[in-house]
Order: sequence, then C-alpha cells, then structure tokens
Amino acid sequence: MEIKILKNVMIKNDAIGNDNRLLFRKHNIFSLNIMSSPGAGKTTLLENSLSYLNKKYRIAVIEGDLYTSRDAERLSPFDIPIVQINTDGGCHLDARMIHGALQSIDLNNLDMIIIENVGNLVCPASFDLGEKIKVLVYSITEGADKPKKYASMFSNVDAILVNKIDLATICNINLEMVCAEIKEINPKAELFQISATNKNTLNSWLSWLDNKKAID
Amino acid sequence: MEIKILKNVMIKNDAIGNDNRLLFRKHNIFSLNIMSSPGAGKTTLLENSLSYLNKKYRIAVIEGDLYTSRDAERLSPFDIPIVQINTDGGCHLDARMIHGALQSIDLNNLDMIIIENVGNLVCPASFDLGEKIKVLVYSITEGADKPKKYASMFSNVDAILVNKIDLATICNINLEMVCAEIKEINPKAELFQISATNKNTLNSWLSWLDNKKAID
Repeated sequence: MEIKILKNVMIKNDAIGNDNRLLFRKHNIFSLNIMSSPGAGKTTLLENSLSYLNKKYRIAVIEGDLYTSRDAERLSPFDIPIVQINTDGGCHLDARMIHGALQSIDLNNLDMIIIENVGNLVCPASFDLGEKIKVLVYSITEGADKPKKYASMFSNVDAILVNKIDLATICNINLEMVCAEIKEINPKAELFQISATNKNTLNSWLSWLDNKKAID
Repeated sequence: MEIKILKNVMIKNDAIGNDNRLLFRKHNIFSLNIMSSPGAGKTTLLENSLSYLNKKYRIAVIEGDLYTSRDAERLSPFDIPIVQINTDGGCHLDARMIHGALQSIDLNNLDMIIIENVGNLVCPASFDLGEKIKVLVYSITEGADKPKKYASMFSNVDAILVNKIDLATICNINLEMVCAEIKEINPKAELFQISATNKNTLNSWLSWLDNKKAID
C-alpha cells in the first residue's frame, strides 16, 4: 500500500517535472538544480558565481529551505528575481513546488534559472524538477567516506564540486583519494575542486557552465 | 490521500516506537538516538565515547546507513554487538527497522543501546524509535545559520553537541552567537561544545550521559 502510493507520488512528480522541462525549453531557459548536505556551501557558491554569471545572463533563483529566507536574503544584493520556497519541514523540493514558483517569474526575459535545493544529501536526489543540469556541492569537511555512503546522490548528478578544499589538510583528507572514489561512483560527472569563498577557484566551474549553456 | 497515508505511516511508526520503548524498559536498557547531517562526526563521537562507556556499561550499537557498513567496521575493535541497518537509499531509520535489529541482540545482557541514525538533518527528526534520549551532533563547519534553518531537528532533541569547535576560527564562526541561537530554539536541550576527535573535550558529555543513565 505505502509502496504503491510512493510510486504514484513519483509518477506524478516526474510528469510535472516534464512539464517544467517543456516550459524551460519553450523559453530557452537553461536550468540548474544545486544540491548538498546542510552547510556544504551552496549559497556561498551561488553568491560568488552570480557576480560573474549575472553580468552575462538574465538569471532567476529559486531558493528551497525548510523555514527561513536567509539564503534568499543573502542573494538580494544581486537585484535578480528570487523566489523563496519554504517546505515547512519537508526534506526536498519537488516538481510541483518548482512549477508553482515559475508562475511568479517572467520567463520571457530569462536565460537561466538556478534552483538551490533543501540541504539534504539523500531525498533531493530522487526528485526530478525538470532541470537540465544537476549539481552536487560536497564539502570535504564531511569526511572522505561520503561518496560511497551517499551513492544515490553522487551517481545521479552532472557535476560535483568538491568544496572547502582549503580545509582538506586540517581535516586530514586526501583529496586525490576522494576524487578517485567519486570518479569510480560517477565516471561521467564533471569534477571541480573549489573553495567557494574564493572566487579564483571557480573559473573552471564557470567556464563549464558557460559551455553547457552555449550548447543547450 | 497522500497526507492521510503519511499520517497512517506515522501512527504505525509511533506504535512500534512504543513497543521498542517498553522493550527497553523491561530490560532496563538506556537508549540513545544520535542524529546529524552527513559527516558531522557521529561515528567519531561514538568511537571516542565508547572507549569510556564500554568499560562501564554493556553496550550494543545499531548503525544506520544507506548502503555501506563503513561505520560499523570502524566500531568493530570494541568487540560489542553491532547491528548494521542498510536503508537502501532510505533517508532515516524508523521504529520497525529498530524493532527488527533488536531481535538479533541479547537484551538480557545489556545496559545501553546506541543508535547512529542516517546522516540527515531533516527526516530522522520525525521518527520516534522508542529511544530515551535524542542527541544531535552539529558541526560548526556547516555554518552558523543552521539551527534556525533546521529548527524541527534542533528543537526536538535532549542534547546538542556542537562539534569541530577547533575549526570555528578558520570557518569564521562566532561560537557564542551560535550557542545563543541554539538556546533560543531549544532552551531545554543540554549544550556541549566538543571536538569529537579530542577525547579531552568529551568529559562533560560523558558525565551527563552517566547521570542520565543513573536516573533512567
């Protein structure tokens, strides 16, 4: 019974996810879904990526959070459309929430939509939002064992940004071994080593995004 | 329809949680449920707490993880009963899983059961496992904004261990402000500042546990 319902929920989600995808396609909007554990650095990455992207593209951001609008407030200096979704304790964004948020954004004047998901390394991996690209931010302060432990997330994304690499030594992390394990789990994902607080480490990531946007 | 089913799932979970609670009571077993984000330091805390607790109490550990048995392997040197639960991608432990695990533990020769939940700062907060004490490990590397963002977890536990405090300065975190915010959200929870890798920082936490066990 419960399993059947869960299957129905996922079928419904995927159908609305497809609607979102058609909507993005129709308006020629490139879309990203950024996921991670709590505090892995999604918002800091966004802040320091937007200062570049915002000059090049017309961007809107959809912010997912359980209760607060703290992340949306951090992005407010960019003067771009930001829609806050509060899940009221819910553990992920789903396609219906995104569909609702899209109603309040002028899709005719947009090149890119960036979705920052709820901080959770498990549930968001299962929900297609209709996005073009799934991005995972993985903070190495979480420990080297996470890629295999959270394989459903790591294996299901297009890009993995290994973040807070400046803390690798103090956290006793062997970055090379971590990256080798990620490559084993997801050989297709593009891998970046970054420190999201330091813009200079984001160049490869931003070039890759430019390229993905160009061929979209 | 979905909401009704969810309610049924929770009612069932709570009923089995109560069964577990009666089982713990019957055998005079003190039980802990340790929760956190991925990589906040639950297993390291366990390792460095068990070296003390293991001399004093007869302990079993139930390890929750999506796929691997890495955490259970880390605890194997302690030569205590360890039951690994793999949720196969599931985002939390529920009361039924714990009930199943208890079947393979000799409850007649036990003082304490420690449950290490799946790394997730959202879903595990909703599921009563029948435990006596809920413990949250919160790594300050996740950022100072997490207590309010994940209020359902922070407000619902008996003890909060603020971990990795040795990284506070490098992460630009004001520990006093973080602790003040936690106290605002959950004034009743016991608050500890620890570095789980350093046993010397665990004394207050272990004394508190001793005391809780004594009055159980």
